[in-house]
Amino acid sequence: MEADVYAKNCPSRQLLDRIGDAWSVLIVASLADGAMRYTELAHRISGISPKMLTQTLRALERDGLVTRTVYPVVPPRVDYALTSLGRSLLSLVDALQEWAEKHIADVVEARNAYDARD
Amino acid sequence: MEADVYAKNCPSRQLLDRIGDAWSVLIVASLADGAMRYTELAHRISGISPKMLTQTLRALERDGLVTRTVYPVVPPRVDYALTSLGRSLLSLVDALQEWAEKHIADVVEARNAYDARD
Repeated sequence: MEADVYAKNCPSRQLLDRIGDAWSVLIVASLADGAMRYTELAHRISGISPKMLTQTLRALERDGLVTRTVYPVVPPRVDYALTSLGRSLLSLVDALQEWAEKHIADVVEARNAYDARD
Repeated sequence: MEADVYAKNCPSRQLLDRIGDAWSVLIVASLADGAMRYTELAHRISGISPKMLTQTLRALERDGLVTRTVYPVVPPRVDYALTSLGRSLLSLVDALQEWAEKHIADVVEARNAYDARD
């Protein structure tokens, strides 16, 4: 079967949500330069709750985008890193971030104009 | 202030969610070739509920990505089209769709492997 994001039951549509999710984008981008510990990710992505970070990491791991490595040390150390599939997302994720940062002023202006209408 | 998607209160982070949202992606991509009526969009994007289509179109309009034009005919005709800001998203949206369609099989395989672990 050909993947088709317009088709109601095609799993590629669900995948579109995963790769567009802001937390996923921020985690994937954070791992661009190499593995990070859970606590480093929590620090890097300001404002993410532990629950959301854990959930998103688990979803990324399940989707084959991120690996989770537990080191048997005390206290336990857990590293997260991109898989090659995850790395294939990097240029997209960079482009998304760049677009968001470049155009936010236009969007805020449009919102203010919209909200001021009659 | 410099936009920074990693900063908790920067609106560019919220924008990241909007442009990654699967419904937004499908609507923006659908409008690539020109204006469409509400009913055409509903038909093109299989499985989107009227409520979700209306909500997403309104959010895209508020963000300055889509225009809404009402023609004073009976029955009323409403067209949606991309603004130039909306058009600046097209290459990104295409890339997202392409990635999702290309890699869905790898992701489904990763999910099955993950779910089969003890």
